[in-house]
Amino acid sequence: MTARGKPPRKPRVLAFDVFGTVVDWRSSIARDSATFLDRIGRRDIDPAAFADAWRFRYIDVMAAFAASGRGFVTLDVLHREMLDEALRAENIDPSTLDDALLDDWNHAWSRLAPWPDSVAGLTRLKAGFPIVTLTNGNISLMLAMARQAGLPWDALLGAEVTRAYKPDPRAYLGTAEVLAIAPEELCLVAAHHSDLAAARACGLSTAYVDRPDEYGGRPAPDADAAQAWDWTADSLTELATLLGC
Amino acid sequence: MTARGKPPRKPRVLAFDVFGTVVDWRSSIARDSATFLDRIGRRDIDPAAFADAWRFRYIDVMAAFAASGRGFVTLDVLHREMLDEALRAENIDPSTLDDALLDDWNHAWSRLAPWPDSVAGLTRLKAGFPIVTLTNGNISLMLAMARQAGLPWDALLGAEVTRAYKPDPRAYLGTAEVLAIAPEELCLVAAHHSDLAAARACGLSTAYVDRPDEYGGRPAPDADAAQAWDWTADSLTELATLLGC
Repeated sequence: MTARGKPPRKPRVLAFDVFGTVVDWRSSIARDSATFLDRIGRRDIDPAAFADAWRFRYIDVMAAFAASGRGFVTLDVLHREMLDEALRAENIDPSTLDDALLDDWNHAWSRLAPWPDSVAGLTRLKAGFPIVTLTNGNISLMLAMARQAGLPWDALLGAEVTRAYKPDPRAYLGTAEVLAIAPEELCLVAAHHSDLAAARACGLSTAYVDRPDEYGGRPAPDADAAQAWDWTADSLTELATLLGC
Repeated sequence: MTARGKPPRKPRVLAFDVFGTVVDWRSSIARDSATFLDRIGRRDIDPAAFADAWRFRYIDVMAAFAASGRGFVTLDVLHREMLDEALRAENIDPSTLDDALLDDWNHAWSRLAPWPDSVAGLTRLKAGFPIVTLTNGNISLMLAMARQAGLPWDALLGAEVTRAYKPDPRAYLGTAEVLAIAPEELCLVAAHHSDLAAARACGLSTAYVDRPDEYGGRPAPDADAAQAWDWTADSLTELATLLGC
């Protein structure tokens, strides 16, 4: 049932990473970017490669945010800066483009499609546990995504509430504090070993969900951070079964 | 359909006051307090009067919080301070009582029962609008209440996210900012004229829901703050009809 010797205590609350764990960012961003690249006359650019370029900027910015000393700004703001940079890397000057088009493109992150098991898995898990986000995405982004994708969250928590981006420890510890529970009573559910490692270092329990298609079938950039997590599942429906929901 | 000359623009998001508007604090707190007063051997104290004493302290503390200069603490903390004071007013020294009992008593605020129309009304309204809390209650309190009462919130917003208590303008304006909408696109739904007046002063639209039983049939303390609100309904189901849901 678990990858460790003794079964871990059942958590009081399940907190979910969202991008990649619950929703498929790559195919959704590639699909939307194909439309926008076409609208700006650049259908020569591969939209999946463009999605990857945008996402890899995100991973770098999140990892460096706490050390940067920059005051908190929402992920909508950061995603837009990264979009502008990804366009410049293709020799496109974003200041020559319509601002409403760029904003609409940026909001592609609120239109991500769930993995096929996500809604059914979350619905089952919600019967047994409070289910909350523990995401770097901001609240308005998560609200729009949840309503479009049918994600039945009990609460939208994460960076905007704690004012800290994962993997900053304050993001994990602050979420437990808001929930009025001890860190070890909170379980992070994520498809990313680096996220789970940071959560475990804060005392949270950990549930890994394998998402082999997140990077289009290529290895994840944090594959070397793998550990024996408290629970391991191939889907959120399998996790529901493991947790008795 | 509305109390003003021209119909107001339909809101983009509905934000709800919770205590009194969605849930019936008085009968729930009186019922729980009867149990706890019995456990401490003070069944001579009228539990409904005790509930009123607790609640009126809340109204005073909220109104004065911004001017007090005190840093933000959650409503769970403030409710507990008010409980201690309400006990002292009955010549009961809270330091002589079991701390776990007092904590359990304090969490009566997360066990409030919804008004009979609340779940059906919110469910209908959610089909047409994002529905969020705009409450002075903290997130863990609202999460526990929502799961117990079946309140289908899209997001739990309010004082803990904005770090300001209503009627501080920052509570209303900060909630619109988190939602990434203009204040006039946000509608406060509340049973309290004073809350709606503060929201209107910030540019929000306003929906009044009449809850004549909130104070056990006696007039509300803010009855003199009544204005012609954008929408007026006797229940959340009637509000759903007014808003076309």
